[in-house]
Amino acid sequence: MARPRTPLLDRERITTTALQLVDEHGDFSVPQIAKRLGAQTGSVYHHVDGRDGIVELLRERVASVIDPGTLSQTPWDTALEAWARSYRAAFAAHPKAIPLLMTSPVRAPRVLEQYERAVTLLLDAGFAVADIMPLLVAVENLVLGSALDLAAPETMWELTPDAATPRLAEALAAVGEGRADRAFEVGLEGLMTHARALRVHGKRS
Amino acid sequence: MARPRTPLLDRERITTTALQLVDEHGDFSVPQIAKRLGAQTGSVYHHVDGRDGIVELLRERVASVIDPGTLSQTPWDTALEAWARSYRAAFAAHPKAIPLLMTSPVRAPRVLEQYERAVTLLLDAGFAVADIMPLLVAVENLVLGSALDLAAPETMWELTPDAATPRLAEALAAVGEGRADRAFEVGLEGLMTHARALRVHGKRS
Repeated sequence: MARPRTPLLDRERITTTALQLVDEHGDFSVPQIAKRLGAQTGSVYHHVDGRDGIVELLRERVASVIDPGTLSQTPWDTALEAWARSYRAAFAAHPKAIPLLMTSPVRAPRVLEQYERAVTLLLDAGFAVADIMPLLVAVENLVLGSALDLAAPETMWELTPDAATPRLAEALAAVGEGRADRAFEVGLEGLMTHARALRVHGKRS
Repeated sequence: MARPRTPLLDRERITTTALQLVDEHGDFSVPQIAKRLGAQTGSVYHHVDGRDGIVELLRERVASVIDPGTLSQTPWDTALEAWARSYRAAFAAHPKAIPLLMTSPVRAPRVLEQYERAVTLLLDAGFAVADIMPLLVAVENLVLGSALDLAAPETMWELTPDAATPRLAEALAAVGEGRADRAFEVGLEGLMTHARALRVHGKRS
């Protein structure tokens, strides 16, 4: 018999399986990956740099659909805003991966390279160096919170029939459809306006 | 023998056990709760309104430490900002509960009541009714993203020794300690400034 054309184990298949587990349960274990792939746990470890290595493979996989062209747009605020939108879309596809990836240190070279490009964008735009990481992380926090919100049901507040919350009912009725998108737009507009003010302040000082 | 003074099952103990499971694994099942409490799964269902009912008990428990006095402060922007800070602290204590609670509809009466108060605050401050939910949700998205970020390691970016990302290294060195707090402050200041502008615009129209 010829060898199977797809090897039982490789980093791609391990990453795909880990992402399936995270999409289902918000977490994964190496034995669970081995079981799904019909392999021994020790064999999985042979292909990756431990559990932490699999987390970094997940990070690269999820972040790989962030459009790399966004950070090359001009001017800098168009670039930052486009990057934030693409970042939200990438993580909205895997909301259960967000807590895992937000609470593990970033080691994946391709992801570090994206941060390098974002920092370079803001340095070149004239931001004070001490302002850059707080601003980028603030944008990420809004983006990732908004990505989780995209996974929420369209009817997020189920009011009681006794109308105990009439003003909440009125405010919800006034929003209509696209609640999650409108909230993200308000938040992003707020952060972008603040970023423009920070930049002018940074240039003066 | 006298009856035990603590009943084996009640809503408080079911909630505490569900929260322990969520803090550990990001999720819970009713059979897991029953097992930890040494009870039958059917007995747990006898005390709560299904799995969804337990999610709402979790929501009430986590939200119960949001300071209820914040929304009574004056003026409105002081109140909204204090509420956002208290909200972040409450959820930062249970980061793994965030995706579960953000993606399940809100039914808990005490939590709906908090939204009613927040909407009332902004209506009374003069916001256009259609602007209120997008603004509140934008604040929540930033708050919950920032709560997850508080659970991140202090050294979140582990740079490679070959200095492939020199500008990221420079930006990180310039921030120093309290990275997560500084990012939250930048984000909150941006949203509060935007909220003040939205209010003036709403009053005009």
